[in-house]
Amino acid sequence: MSVIPESHADLLARPLFAHLATIRPNGQPQVNPMWFAWDGEHLRFTNTTVRQKYKNVTEHPEVAVSINDPDQPYRYLEIRGTVERIEPDPKGEFFDTIAKRYGMVLDGPVSDAEYRVIYVVKPTSVSKQ
Amino acid sequence: MSVIPESHADLLARPLFAHLATIRPNGQPQVNPMWFAWDGEHLRFTNTTVRQKYKNVTEHPEVAVSINDPDQPYRYLEIRGTVERIEPDPKGEFFDTIAKRYGMVLDGPVSDAEYRVIYVVKPTSVSKQ
Repeated sequence: MSVIPESHADLLARPLFAHLATIRPNGQPQVNPMWFAWDGEHLRFTNTTVRQKYKNVTEHPEVAVSINDPDQPYRYLEIRGTVERIEPDPKGEFFDTIAKRYGMVLDGPVSDAEYRVIYVVKPTSVSKQ
Repeated sequence: MSVIPESHADLLARPLFAHLATIRPNGQPQVNPMWFAWDGEHLRFTNTTVRQKYKNVTEHPEVAVSINDPDQPYRYLEIRGTVERIEPDPKGEFFDTIAKRYGMVLDGPVSDAEYRVIYVVKPTSVSKQ
């Protein structure tokens, strides 16, 4: 059973931006808008091993995301969860898939594919409005 | 001198939603869309002493916010900073001011004014796109 409430499942089906909160190695929070994908069980994010976020989630796998509905901005879903695993994406295949989800047309191979990774996040609790 | 880049100052002038990341007492991140006000030096948020966020910021005053431009969603500003002080708002005057900024018409006195507080956040660093 997913912790995601049926009433807000559409926010995960739509290509909205998720504001992903992570914890920096010094304990301070960081938050950035991110693309995401949802398969009914895990949230997935594309990132690279050269980004600050990679340092954050390797040290502190607990994360949280906030997604609000651009059509009804007071309607939102917060998901807290854990980065269960970090998968390599050395051909940028997941990046390519998620870019298409967000309507981006790539005009060539993913330039930083060798550093691409996927954060696989298991939701553990939610809040909503 | 503010750390806010001139190129993104409009995101603070407009009544957009700020996704506020805080750290829970157990060290896990939390992130929620919030109203905010900006006076050129501090970000201000309205909240109440009965909310989880109040426990978070009294224990961990470091926070971060992510604001993206609904008209150009890849354009965003992240601000990291510290809750310098928490001010009481026992008549809900700040709540009333910020509600007006967001176009909300109150049909009576603020019902939870006795618990209302203002988080006064000093930005310390930013990232942007």
